[in-house]
Amino acid sequence: MTKWVYGFGDGAAEGDAKMKALLGGKGANLAEMSSLGLPVPPGFTITTGVCTHFYANDRRYPDDLKAEVEAALKRVEAGTGMAFGDPANPLLVSVRSGAPVSMPGMMDTVLNLGLNDETVQGLAQNSGDPRFAFDSYRRFVQMYGDVVMGVDHYAFEERLDDLKAEAGVRYDTDLGADALRRLVEDYKAIVEREAGEPFPLDPMAQLWGAIGAVFGSWQTPRAVTYRRLHHISAEMGTAVTVQAMVFGNMGDDCATGVAFTRNPSTGEKAYYGEFLVNAQGEDVVAGIRTPQPLSRTMASGGEFEGMSMEDVLPDSYAGLVRVFDRLEGHYKDMQDIEFTIQSSKLYVLQTRSGKRTAPAALKIAVDMAEAGLITREEAILRVDPASLDQLLHPTLDPDAEVQVIAKGLPASPGAVSGKVVFLADDAERLGNQGEAVILVRIETSPDDIHGMHAAKGILTSRGGMTSHAAVVARGMGKAAVCGVGEISISYKEKSFTVRGLTVNEGDEITLDGAAGTVMLGRVPTVDPKLSGDFETLMGWADKVRRLGVRTNAETPLDANAALRFGAEGIGLCRTEHMFFQEERIVAMQEMILADDAEGRKRALAKLEPYQADDFAELFEIMKGLPVTIRLLDPPLHEFLPHDPEGEEAVAEAAGVDVKTVRRRVAALRETNPMLGLRGCRLGILFPEIVEMQARAIFKGALQVKAKGGDTVKPEIMVPLIATAKELEIHKALIDAVAEELGAGSKLDYSVGTMIELPRAALQAGRIAEHADFFSYGTNDMTQMGLGLSRDDAGRFLDAYLQAGIFERDPFQSIDLEGVGELVAIATERGRQTRPDIKLGICGEHGGDPASIDFCEKVGLDYVSCSPYRVPIARLAAAQAALRKE
Amino acid sequence: MTKWVYGFGDGAAEGDAKMKALLGGKGANLAEMSSLGLPVPPGFTITTGVCTHFYANDRRYPDDLKAEVEAALKRVEAGTGMAFGDPANPLLVSVRSGAPVSMPGMMDTVLNLGLNDETVQGLAQNSGDPRFAFDSYRRFVQMYGDVVMGVDHYAFEERLDDLKAEAGVRYDTDLGADALRRLVEDYKAIVEREAGEPFPLDPMAQLWGAIGAVFGSWQTPRAVTYRRLHHISAEMGTAVTVQAMVFGNMGDDCATGVAFTRNPSTGEKAYYGEFLVNAQGEDVVAGIRTPQPLSRTMASGGEFEGMSMEDVLPDSYAGLVRVFDRLEGHYKDMQDIEFTIQSSKLYVLQTRSGKRTAPAALKIAVDMAEAGLITREEAILRVDPASLDQLLHPTLDPDAEVQVIAKGLPASPGAVSGKVVFLADDAERLGNQGEAVILVRIETSPDDIHGMHAAKGILTSRGGMTSHAAVVARGMGKAAVCGVGEISISYKEKSFTVRGLTVNEGDEITLDGAAGTVMLGRVPTVDPKLSGDFETLMGWADKVRRLGVRTNAETPLDANAALRFGAEGIGLCRTEHMFFQEERIVAMQEMILADDAEGRKRALAKLEPYQADDFAELFEIMKGLPVTIRLLDPPLHEFLPHDPEGEEAVAEAAGVDVKTVRRRVAALRETNPMLGLRGCRLGILFPEIVEMQARAIFKGALQVKAKGGDTVKPEIMVPLIATAKELEIHKALIDAVAEELGAGSKLDYSVGTMIELPRAALQAGRIAEHADFFSYGTNDMTQMGLGLSRDDAGRFLDAYLQAGIFERDPFQSIDLEGVGELVAIATERGRQTRPDIKLGICGEHGGDPASIDFCEKVGLDYVSCSPYRVPIARLAAAQAALRKE
Repeated sequence: MTKWVYGFGDGAAEGDAKMKALLGGKGANLAEMSSLGLPVPPGFTITTGVCTHFYANDRRYPDDLKAEVEAALKRVEAGTGMAFGDPANPLLVSVRSGAPVSMPGMMDTVLNLGLNDETVQGLAQNSGDPRFAFDSYRRFVQMYGDVVMGVDHYAFEERLDDLKAEAGVRYDTDLGADALRRLVEDYKAIVEREAGEPFPLDPMAQLWGAIGAVFGSWQTPRAVTYRRLHHISAEMGTAVTVQAMVFGNMGDDCATGVAFTRNPSTGEKAYYGEFLVNAQGEDVVAGIRTPQPLSRTMASGGEFEGMSMEDVLPDSYAGLVRVFDRLEGHYKDMQDIEFTIQSSKLYVLQTRSGKRTAPAALKIAVDMAEAGLITREEAILRVDPASLDQLLHPTLDPDAEVQVIAKGLPASPGAVSGKVVFLADDAERLGNQGEAVILVRIETSPDDIHGMHAAKGILTSRGGMTSHAAVVARGMGKAAVCGVGEISISYKEKSFTVRGLTVNEGDEITLDGAAGTVMLGRVPTVDPKLSGDFETLMGWADKVRRLGVRTNAETPLDANAALRFGAEGIGLCRTEHMFFQEERIVAMQEMILADDAEGRKRALAKLEPYQADDFAELFEIMKGLPVTIRLLDPPLHEFLPHDPEGEEAVAEAAGVDVKTVRRRVAALRETNPMLGLRGCRLGILFPEIVEMQARAIFKGALQVKAKGGDTVKPEIMVPLIATAKELEIHKALIDAVAEELGAGSKLDYSVGTMIELPRAALQAGRIAEHADFFSYGTNDMTQMGLGLSRDDAGRFLDAYLQAGIFERDPFQSIDLEGVGELVAIATERGRQTRPDIKLGICGEHGGDPASIDFCEKVGLDYVSCSPYRVPIARLAAAQAALRKE
Repeated sequence: MTKWVYGFGDGAAEGDAKMKALLGGKGANLAEMSSLGLPVPPGFTITTGVCTHFYANDRRYPDDLKAEVEAALKRVEAGTGMAFGDPANPLLVSVRSGAPVSMPGMMDTVLNLGLNDETVQGLAQNSGDPRFAFDSYRRFVQMYGDVVMGVDHYAFEERLDDLKAEAGVRYDTDLGADALRRLVEDYKAIVEREAGEPFPLDPMAQLWGAIGAVFGSWQTPRAVTYRRLHHISAEMGTAVTVQAMVFGNMGDDCATGVAFTRNPSTGEKAYYGEFLVNAQGEDVVAGIRTPQPLSRTMASGGEFEGMSMEDVLPDSYAGLVRVFDRLEGHYKDMQDIEFTIQSSKLYVLQTRSGKRTAPAALKIAVDMAEAGLITREEAILRVDPASLDQLLHPTLDPDAEVQVIAKGLPASPGAVSGKVVFLADDAERLGNQGEAVILVRIETSPDDIHGMHAAKGILTSRGGMTSHAAVVARGMGKAAVCGVGEISISYKEKSFTVRGLTVNEGDEITLDGAAGTVMLGRVPTVDPKLSGDFETLMGWADKVRRLGVRTNAETPLDANAALRFGAEGIGLCRTEHMFFQEERIVAMQEMILADDAEGRKRALAKLEPYQADDFAELFEIMKGLPVTIRLLDPPLHEFLPHDPEGEEAVAEAAGVDVKTVRRRVAALRETNPMLGLRGCRLGILFPEIVEMQARAIFKGALQVKAKGGDTVKPEIMVPLIATAKELEIHKALIDAVAEELGAGSKLDYSVGTMIELPRAALQAGRIAEHADFFSYGTNDMTQMGLGLSRDDAGRFLDAYLQAGIFERDPFQSIDLEGVGELVAIATERGRQTRPDIKLGICGEHGGDPASIDFCEKVGLDYVSCSPYRVPIARLAAAQAALRKE
């Protein structure tokens, strides 16, 4: 015979935490706590099986349910010493839904069930507080009327407002017992008028009504939609938990509170929380009374007012401490606990893992592992890798007053203040003068790199999390807020307006790149402290992870930062970033303006020594670690100016007619530059560029070797390969240069490609014939695979996330079904051709924990990310390895 | 024992046409002709097996080869009654390479082998023509010196030029026997000087030298590269064919000629060709003598000068006619035959299927099938579908004199003349006045549609075969030449310049869209004649093809044209094209400028009746055939002007501030519009657009039904789907509108999607849950899959084709390895979910025979192409079905 009802209470329970599928999350947890011997108000759970039966049998209950519920209720009566519907000593209960997974759209809670015109008298008498009794009653009528009988809650609130107006009072709490008694009558009349039937006064009728409402809510359109969106099976069903009410507001030996077993801000091992005497939960919310600190230590800290619970209710406090230790010991994690003390008796209403700051998470995990409460592996899994971001950048002083003037995407973390400038040149000029500036642009381009370097932070009105501004800022470790659509920038006026406010050049603003907020004026910040806990946990993580972690870097600054953060090599060195400095850009432009290969070669010859020196410097810093160098990738027009003055300057520098410059700029213009003449296509058309870059790489490496430095292993990466043939041609060019320089015998170099086009993923088997390695360029693969420009998608990505079309921004976290399958296909086919092919990822996703988890599953060799995300990647890689085991 | 040498001649042969792998193409064909009893000069072929042996054994021949060659040579001597090296009656031979597939980079031919200082006397005596003998000798020394001994041919030509200067003559033919005899001596001296060894005078040494040169040329770098590029195995090897020489220039009973068994221009069943008495092939090429017609019929036609062979050499002619009949009967195709008559004896040197015009191909195929020579299926396979394009458009009068001023891509066939205009508005104005105009633009956009409609032809300086101009022009059946990079257009001056020439507005030019040429002035054209053969063959094709053929059309003009060409429905109706007419574009712009959904709905309500009427008209024309309507696809900025005047006009029409217009234009600007806010993304953000279009479609269909018209089956197609969810949302919107109009019960409509994003192809299984049909948008899939913008790729596509990276333009012919695999994956996954899902293709590839072949293989239900390609698609589909069997 199927058992439909599971009781709990008095240190025992018929279920436990593992029975979520049958009892729902709430029911299973209450059973678990009860079994632990914790003081949980007694109750019982009607299983999800009843829900399934209900819908399979035309909304009828199993025959034996009624008897089981009545028997369970009897046990609750016995446990509490009260009786359901007894006018003298009434048992009141709460009725809650509880599906195996949390689900909006379901009926939530009915409290104080069991009250009627008679039992309310018993409650008044027993509590000695008629106001409390009638307040409880009117809340019950409203809640039941609303969620069980479908009466709009506005009807009740309107009447309450009227009553307060009549009585000339402001707060609900100013209404006395008599007023509330009248309100109950009015509420009952409202229910009868709106629902077409009287409010039920029989407690058993109330109970079955509430149970039926829970089961009925399983199929409301909102719940159905939610399940469909989240791929939750309707078969799962919901459970119903009925539990005895307890009250923290029945006198001065009553209290209610919330506590943490450790400090959630710092992670310190010290009980932490707040309580209120003679109060219930919503009194805290109402903000009328200030809660008091839990412990004497807290009270003595000066942060909190009032006496501690340790002093006021020492016995209850001692009981609470026992509960804390029991729960933390049992769940092996810091707990967030809700409790109520009714007439000096402690009840635990809920426990769950407590939310905590990143430093706290680190400290708690390390402390617990070192205390032997959890393993090091468990400690690794306890810290959210993304939260480490908070630790690595300055943050706003939490005590500072701020005036947020706009909100955008949290594109690159860090809190910075500075004077607003609108031109990269101005940013550079002022930055060189030691001014802190914030570069404000509609969007940025490689032309702005020098200004971005000089600025403290970047603010753009257009572009998403992976727009040029966001990517470059993260790479540089600079704060950025992007895609702030509500600000309107005028380069002409050198000002921006937002919400009627005008901010001019030179005005100070502050950006919080982690929150995506823009504030007026200078807001003080606090510097990050990397605790010993950080190093400890990272050390443990490094021991368990399988994936290598490299960085995307091309400047000595970035390379050094990444090494400090634990990078094991460079996974992406974007050579084009090296072409933007003064003397180089001129030679680059000369190359672009040249009419033939000879002219290009002359210009490239000027660039070569710069590149060779750049590489030598980078190789020296990286001390023998692998360095993956991507050949020139962006379309050439990114190196030319697009304004008349710029064109004239270029013409003068290159010694050509300005018309020639203009003609070339026009000829290079592209409708869709992302799909244009870039990547390896440049090398096919202009092999001399490939040759120059290969020569510079080999010369740089030989230079370091000659000086006795660690032997670097250059990995030359050809971008935007669509066909095996393109790579074959490039490899031949590179190998010929190596031969020419005798680098083949002196250096251990390899040639590989980015797999970033869908076609390349499909053709990986043939491409691997010419590739020593693949690096998945998942940024571009997302753009091509989804037909989504990262510069333009900001305009509709939000709507897509809201509609549930994308679960996450595909530029932040790999789209597993599309891009993920392409990566998986390429990995399989690449390895089939060349089992030892080295596989990595160098898109923005390389620093995203969910994407790193995917990289571990699919078996890549390493991930590469911006320097400031290296620690995140190390931890995420360790977690991925542990989860895979 | 392996047989190394296969003889032929005298009505017999040891091999046949099927032995190409062993004998090479040439050797196999000569054997076949010989077996047929045709008068082929005798000879023998050394097999490809010898080549393989040669390379497998350090360049040594099989031991028994020498004996086999000598024996075969004896048989040739016996057959000709001459002897190799015999001073009195010398046998001369040709030595040719012959791989199983034709291959550049191989040694080609040595003629007249066997000549030396003695045998030349015999030749002089027997021919009675010492000049002929020494001319043959000096040619032999040069050819042998060049291809066998590696002496640069310039050395010989220089000496020949000197000799002509000394003799004071202009042509080689003016040099007498004595001069040529001296030349031979000089040539031999040149060989000895350059090659470091004397010219071999022993005929057997000559023969083995030539044989060795052929085998040696198999591994030249050029041949190796060619094989690698074309995936030809080096194992295949080449054969060598040695054949007795015959001469058409040994007197007046000698002749040489070329003949076709049918007229290659018209297909008429009449022998057709030219000949010269006492001449050899190169005399025709030299152009000194005018060839005479073959038959009396030809001679009487007035087109040819001179007496016919039928009159001059009646016996030889009669022999030739027997050969014609024998060969055509044997090969069952019109043959292109080379023949030589030596001393009244006819020799056939070569036969192959003759090249022919499209009308001739049609007529020959139909005639042969009706005569029972071939089956109808064979007739279908005989006509190149692409060639039909010639039949459907006017062509330049072949007799006209033309001045080609530039050349670009043959974007859309047809020959048209008209006055040059540079603005779409001018084109429309003049077009409405009845002027023939050619619209000349750097590139076109949807803003130019009205001008393109009004123009006779379109010329652009930028953009490829699938640029906007090219696609729209083909859709309209208008001639277009695109991407003419060498013309430089100034809109300001209203002129373009090319090769120093300036063409002003109002000047007349002519375009040949099939050749991609631009000509100055008006060139007369001839109209196409669709013969009965065309209808006959199409009828046969329709019976065997499995693929349906639909058209891409949105105007009544296009729909009617497509129906005339045999379209079985509309596979792609691009609704945005309907928004560009005067009153509509204003409402469209009002919609784009609206601030909220209400404003958009007001504007859309104005568009709805237009759309409904458009659809009703189209449905009426299509008489119950399926019509696939794609919802709005392009980004909205395509509907807004981008110049100040346009912006002001829009502001006035929409009753808003011009600043508002400018702000919206700026806000809608996209970096990569191809990857931007378009397709179904518009419907997700602005569902009211989807609702309006659905309403217009249903109303249009109901209107036709109410009038008693054939019941159309609207197929509503949602573009740019990346996720199943997007389609689910769209389908819900469309179904709701159907419900609202009661269309669900009255109409048989379906909802499907374009699969054009790589992600969509991978997710086809889930997308199919909501799709009644898929239409593969292979244009965009090519763009996304290869990361290739069709508007920008023109700049490097040529280099890619030349480098062999792409075998064909992937926008013209499906990239089988990339896009093809995506289509195959989507087809498999889509059918797994929904076995009856209807699958078609509506990209430009729908009209490309190679792509249609792929569609047949992968099992699609239909292809859809522009109206003028419908016949091509019908024929290609039939061929694909036959090839698949």
